[in-house]
Amino acid sequence: MAYKALDIDTVCDYLSGIEEIRAYFGTEAIEASEIGDGNLNFVYLVRSVADPDRALIAKQAVPYLRIAGEGFPLSRERMTYEIRALRTFGQIAPAYVPEIYYSSEEMSLLVMQYLGAHQILRTGLLEGRQYPHFAEHISSYLAETLFHTSSLYLQSEQKRALMDQFNGNTELCKLTEDFVFTFPYMEHETNDAAQIESNPALAARIFADMPFKERVLELKYKFMTQADALLHGDLHTGSIMANAEETYVIDPEFAFVGPFGFDIGALLANLIQNYIHHDIVTGDKTHKAWLLETIRDTLLLFEQKFLALWDQTDSSALMIPGLLDTESRRAYQQRFMLGILHDTVGFAGCKMARRIFGIAGVADIRGIEDQAQRSAAQERVYEIARDFVMAYDSIDSVDEILKRIKG
Amino acid sequence: MAYKALDIDTVCDYLSGIEEIRAYFGTEAIEASEIGDGNLNFVYLVRSVADPDRALIAKQAVPYLRIAGEGFPLSRERMTYEIRALRTFGQIAPAYVPEIYYSSEEMSLLVMQYLGAHQILRTGLLEGRQYPHFAEHISSYLAETLFHTSSLYLQSEQKRALMDQFNGNTELCKLTEDFVFTFPYMEHETNDAAQIESNPALAARIFADMPFKERVLELKYKFMTQADALLHGDLHTGSIMANAEETYVIDPEFAFVGPFGFDIGALLANLIQNYIHHDIVTGDKTHKAWLLETIRDTLLLFEQKFLALWDQTDSSALMIPGLLDTESRRAYQQRFMLGILHDTVGFAGCKMARRIFGIAGVADIRGIEDQAQRSAAQERVYEIARDFVMAYDSIDSVDEILKRIKG
Repeated sequence: MAYKALDIDTVCDYLSGIEEIRAYFGTEAIEASEIGDGNLNFVYLVRSVADPDRALIAKQAVPYLRIAGEGFPLSRERMTYEIRALRTFGQIAPAYVPEIYYSSEEMSLLVMQYLGAHQILRTGLLEGRQYPHFAEHISSYLAETLFHTSSLYLQSEQKRALMDQFNGNTELCKLTEDFVFTFPYMEHETNDAAQIESNPALAARIFADMPFKERVLELKYKFMTQADALLHGDLHTGSIMANAEETYVIDPEFAFVGPFGFDIGALLANLIQNYIHHDIVTGDKTHKAWLLETIRDTLLLFEQKFLALWDQTDSSALMIPGLLDTESRRAYQQRFMLGILHDTVGFAGCKMARRIFGIAGVADIRGIEDQAQRSAAQERVYEIARDFVMAYDSIDSVDEILKRIKG
Repeated sequence: MAYKALDIDTVCDYLSGIEEIRAYFGTEAIEASEIGDGNLNFVYLVRSVADPDRALIAKQAVPYLRIAGEGFPLSRERMTYEIRALRTFGQIAPAYVPEIYYSSEEMSLLVMQYLGAHQILRTGLLEGRQYPHFAEHISSYLAETLFHTSSLYLQSEQKRALMDQFNGNTELCKLTEDFVFTFPYMEHETNDAAQIESNPALAARIFADMPFKERVLELKYKFMTQADALLHGDLHTGSIMANAEETYVIDPEFAFVGPFGFDIGALLANLIQNYIHHDIVTGDKTHKAWLLETIRDTLLLFEQKFLALWDQTDSSALMIPGLLDTESRRAYQQRFMLGILHDTVGFAGCKMARRIFGIAGVADIRGIEDQAQRSAAQERVYEIARDFVMAYDSIDSVDEILKRIKG
């Protein structure tokens, strides 16, 4: 099946030709509307005309950046990795990953569950909404996906087969290397000129902050070379859809085998940015307290669940029964988890710092309309980010992280 | 060209059918003899009958362990990685890698330069021979091959393409995971029972040494997940051929993208084992002094040359011009080199410890005929190996390494 780009006029006909889609809608007529999806892909909501609750999402990558047009080429192979990652994570943690009805790497097309009763987490958090089960859900998602795709669970040949599937996702890894770890900390044409102009003193400080950039480079090197587990690769609060009962992780097109702490750190960074937003803009104390509690619970539950999965695993590429006694195994595990915590803090710092002046901002900070408030928020982001990056390998507990967020 | 196993009766006919080989020998008649090559492959010395100085080596993998016979299957794809690695290293450091005349991944066949004027380094070192240019040569080989296959030199897509080429070498990586990092430190059927029987107290100490094994596991995890550069993967003194003027590195069938320190550590381990051999068996002071000097020069020259290559490189996956100033770049590099030194020491410790009771011994230690001397050598190996493994991340200089070797 050769690739062809679908559009709003052809998508229904095309989908009707696919057995799995016909099985879903039966004989009902269907209609499509285009809905937003960040900036990269075309996303259609496809519904039964007679029963609009019967609906699914069709997402197709085009060989250019959707928001910028055909003049900005970007390989559509990104959808190949999104499909593979969603299938892998869906098998491991089905409660937190949308169901796939159909996918085609050739067509760069994914047809999946419509999450009509859920909201993008970032949007909800900006509205001051709280999600009582979020820490429980996301800690399970992280523990399950990271553990089960690592050398702590897989055998060597399985781990290498997994790496083979994702090693080609160079283009999106390169985006992270450039836009998280490099360009936002130097004069660069891709940075947001308007933001720099509105807070030139902070930009000057960051661009001249050599000790900080040395440490960022250390973390960039880890990102590029530390093959712990299959990552989502872009786990900010815009990649999560939630309501009071459920949590789904979407859009894993940046997936690759990288350091455990990168996914956890991305989430931590985005929760902190929401905390700063509310601290400076709304002053909502209940929400701020809930955020801190959620950060604490997420990190502690992640560790608990990751260790529980590890304890259920007799043999893997790393661990052979009979090598260590119980006490040494426990000591080894504790040191291992501390390493993950360190990396989490370091990557969280980078993921925050890049949002200040880099190409891609977040609504929590860049969306603050009042310039004085926005500058204050940017400075607070930098303060925490810098602290995290400089001290990441000596921040040894979740309490210590919370203390540093509260400042 | 489908695979077929050659033998002493068919190899000359087969080679005569290959244009590159005919070009080498012209119209001269050729003859072959089988020569040893460790335990895995068939190796033929092919000579011109009229002019025996005109000679080359043909090496073919069979789908089993040569020394054990067809009952011990081992995928012949190991030759695929040897061919790829030899070609990659040959392009980077041609002075230290045998020339390839012909190779075929389908036939698992490699035809290359005959090193008739060179001796296996381990054999020479056991005879107390010294190689005045060895440190100069091997430090160049290490600096050139490791630097040029790392993210410090390559761009992201080049690094990932390199990983793609070697990611499949699972079978041989697994041998290292098992036989360097796991089985030699526990009761296991693959260990050398006769050695254990001759020194049961030491075996009991090692098998019960939980703090040591915890650290070995930490280094095993690094081996499995830290994708710094394309390694030789088995760089002991039996993989090096040398004479007074030249040094060649052979047999890179274990090649994969792993931690810098693993190759350097393997070499360090084997030089130290030779030092222990001479300390206990021959008492040859000149040779011992030369070994210490060679270790020092190799490590210092490696660092110097690696940094010099780095300084010549404007832009790579890791480094973008304009991010750091000169002073910070230098500070970053110094910390990076210290990390390589740490890993080198840790891996050297593992590579030594595995030789005491593991399946594969080295002549320097296991070949000592006098049992009391052999036991003393084993204990000295363990003492240094344990010290290295326990303290690897706090041994910060080459002088400190030498001090610890001298005890």
